[in-house]
Amino acid sequence: MKRIYFDHSSTTPVDNRVLDAMLPYFVEHFGNPSSILIEEGGRPHKAVEEAREKIARLIGAQMNEIIFTSSATESNNMAIKGLALANKDKGKHILFSDIEHFSIMNQADFMRNLGFEIDFIQVDNYGVVDMDDLAKKVRDDTVLVSVMHANLEIGTIEPIKEIASFLKEREIVFHSDGTGSCGRIPVDVKDLGVDSMTISSHQFYGPKGVAALYLKNGMRLSSIMHGGFQEMGYRAGTENVPGIVGFGEAARFAMEELDERVHRLVTLGKKLWNGMESTIDFLHFTGHPKKRLPGHVSFWIEFVEGESLLLWLNLNSIACASGSACASNMMAADETGLKASHVLTAVGVPPEICHGSITFSLGKDNTPEEVEHVLYVMPGIVKRLRDMSPLYASFRQQEGKRK
Amino acid sequence: MKRIYFDHSSTTPVDNRVLDAMLPYFVEHFGNPSSILIEEGGRPHKAVEEAREKIARLIGAQMNEIIFTSSATESNNMAIKGLALANKDKGKHILFSDIEHFSIMNQADFMRNLGFEIDFIQVDNYGVVDMDDLAKKVRDDTVLVSVMHANLEIGTIEPIKEIASFLKEREIVFHSDGTGSCGRIPVDVKDLGVDSMTISSHQFYGPKGVAALYLKNGMRLSSIMHGGFQEMGYRAGTENVPGIVGFGEAARFAMEELDERVHRLVTLGKKLWNGMESTIDFLHFTGHPKKRLPGHVSFWIEFVEGESLLLWLNLNSIACASGSACASNMMAADETGLKASHVLTAVGVPPEICHGSITFSLGKDNTPEEVEHVLYVMPGIVKRLRDMSPLYASFRQQEGKRK
Repeated sequence: MKRIYFDHSSTTPVDNRVLDAMLPYFVEHFGNPSSILIEEGGRPHKAVEEAREKIARLIGAQMNEIIFTSSATESNNMAIKGLALANKDKGKHILFSDIEHFSIMNQADFMRNLGFEIDFIQVDNYGVVDMDDLAKKVRDDTVLVSVMHANLEIGTIEPIKEIASFLKEREIVFHSDGTGSCGRIPVDVKDLGVDSMTISSHQFYGPKGVAALYLKNGMRLSSIMHGGFQEMGYRAGTENVPGIVGFGEAARFAMEELDERVHRLVTLGKKLWNGMESTIDFLHFTGHPKKRLPGHVSFWIEFVEGESLLLWLNLNSIACASGSACASNMMAADETGLKASHVLTAVGVPPEICHGSITFSLGKDNTPEEVEHVLYVMPGIVKRLRDMSPLYASFRQQEGKRK
Repeated sequence: MKRIYFDHSSTTPVDNRVLDAMLPYFVEHFGNPSSILIEEGGRPHKAVEEAREKIARLIGAQMNEIIFTSSATESNNMAIKGLALANKDKGKHILFSDIEHFSIMNQADFMRNLGFEIDFIQVDNYGVVDMDDLAKKVRDDTVLVSVMHANLEIGTIEPIKEIASFLKEREIVFHSDGTGSCGRIPVDVKDLGVDSMTISSHQFYGPKGVAALYLKNGMRLSSIMHGGFQEMGYRAGTENVPGIVGFGEAARFAMEELDERVHRLVTLGKKLWNGMESTIDFLHFTGHPKKRLPGHVSFWIEFVEGESLLLWLNLNSIACASGSACASNMMAADETGLKASHVLTAVGVPPEICHGSITFSLGKDNTPEEVEHVLYVMPGIVKRLRDMSPLYASFRQQEGKRK
């Protein structure tokens, strides 16, 4: 049976048109773009700059505000470390939202070792940053705030413009991780008012191994990758030319087809949401019901372990992610895999009754038939798992007693 | 006219067989290798581990000693920063050789800001590390030494085994940048005795955007890229699966074909070296005449600017690099481009008569006919440039007077 891929939050396939654009840069136009004095360097150099323009256009930036990196993780590391170090004379206090990705969160210890102090901004039960808490946590020596644009685990889109405006008055640098938003929803960095933003290629049908950091003109950033003079001196290393070319093309298609993709995904997402709501009981959606990524449906079900549900769906040819416990990544291989997701904890999901959540993240090539099929198989799998659950058995027993 | 590519030090074309191996991982097997609980993650995960084994085999390492990164620059940054920070309780003194690549050299200021002290080890006129100077510079608080395996500008291969043995007695961590050596000459990290080594994919017909760091089992290394739990926790970020697959295949071919490639390149290199020696006067080869990379011929010519020679060769369909002043990279675009190469300065080339050197770096697909063609056109270009040189004119005038 053909697989149904509802895990676009984890990664997306490369668009065939994107791959076609990349191919000439592996063998034929293989030159080093830094070799500008020989013919071999010319075409790759031009291709990198054309891609830079496409990324810039996707998010409303200037070309010289785009720095290519190897991953969203690197962009987030470059932003937090680079902006904090460049501004450390102004203060050493940093704020992260409670639902940032690991590539922000897990920098905290390193930054503390460099003498920085990290605090966390609370979110409400929908995962939306609490502006009052932000106002309470901001201090005179706060130099940097990081709030992601959209959370890929629970789908919530954050009020970035409002946060940016609040921080601008206080002259605090604002980084936003746009891994979940760029290429999926309209993003205009000038309108949002962010100082830096992470953009990830493989989140919108571009290749893995390439990403970018938007850095507003005039911002100071200390390089953390030292060496040659590529990327305006911000990021050393021979450019991943085919990757960058593919990233650029993916950005171009995302821009050209954005309205169509969003419309389609909103429709499919609604269909899935409503269908699940009406057929599965003890179901709890996570994230904001409206301010969320199109085609993104995340939830947890009482008495059903997220990981078991994911495995059964997988056996039924449906790919999704278990938001809880990073069950779908390497953490599951060690003991920490049993820890609850920091995102679910932050939105107040009670760990004693939520045994892991599920994220369905649809993509541009999913169909209504696929949604229907998932809705068709879900109730049976949920029933089967519940019947195996000792917690559900004792719950029903207690309910029986009460009747 | 077909181009003659003698610039394999800058980069190499991807081998068609390597590209073929990569292709299925862009669209078909596009899954996130961290998504091990769903079918989509399985094949990419396996492919990454298979590539890891191939890289390990190329350099005689264990699989779990290979960490994938995005570039040799990143590997060098990870090694210097990560090893120094992990060992800082033992001391804060670091030694770099005088001819390290920018991706080592340009970390010096950052490390000094972290409280480390950097000294430099001298090399002799062939670019070989001076063991006496190393012995003189090593201190009780020296924690880390970095000496590259082979220099891509002058071709010299360093006595890594000897250095490693010296440092091991003193319990000093030893990093070696193997960008120039791995995939070009036999490398056995256990025999060499290094603690870490950088390996670059695009230096031996693999794709750009991927590299690795060999880290000997038991070595402590602080991560500098924080986030998810990829690469045994050493390097966060979604893996560049097609890039890693290509890197692995390039390593496999490099290993299988190494003897053949070395033999061929030694022969071609000798032909070029001898031919130039007998046809061009005032020629000075750089680097060690014997302990050098196969197919690597580097030199400077009195009264001839390296950059002009490079441009004229380029117009004659010959691609090479100008080692001096990084003329063939972006530095040339700014004023620093006029600074002499730190490598040439280190090997004692007099800046007042050397106006830039040239590196011919041959590759596995170059032919004797191409070498013959280069030897055929070189004397004419050199004569032309000399005739334009006011320095040469005054030199000849003075010579004339002496006669």
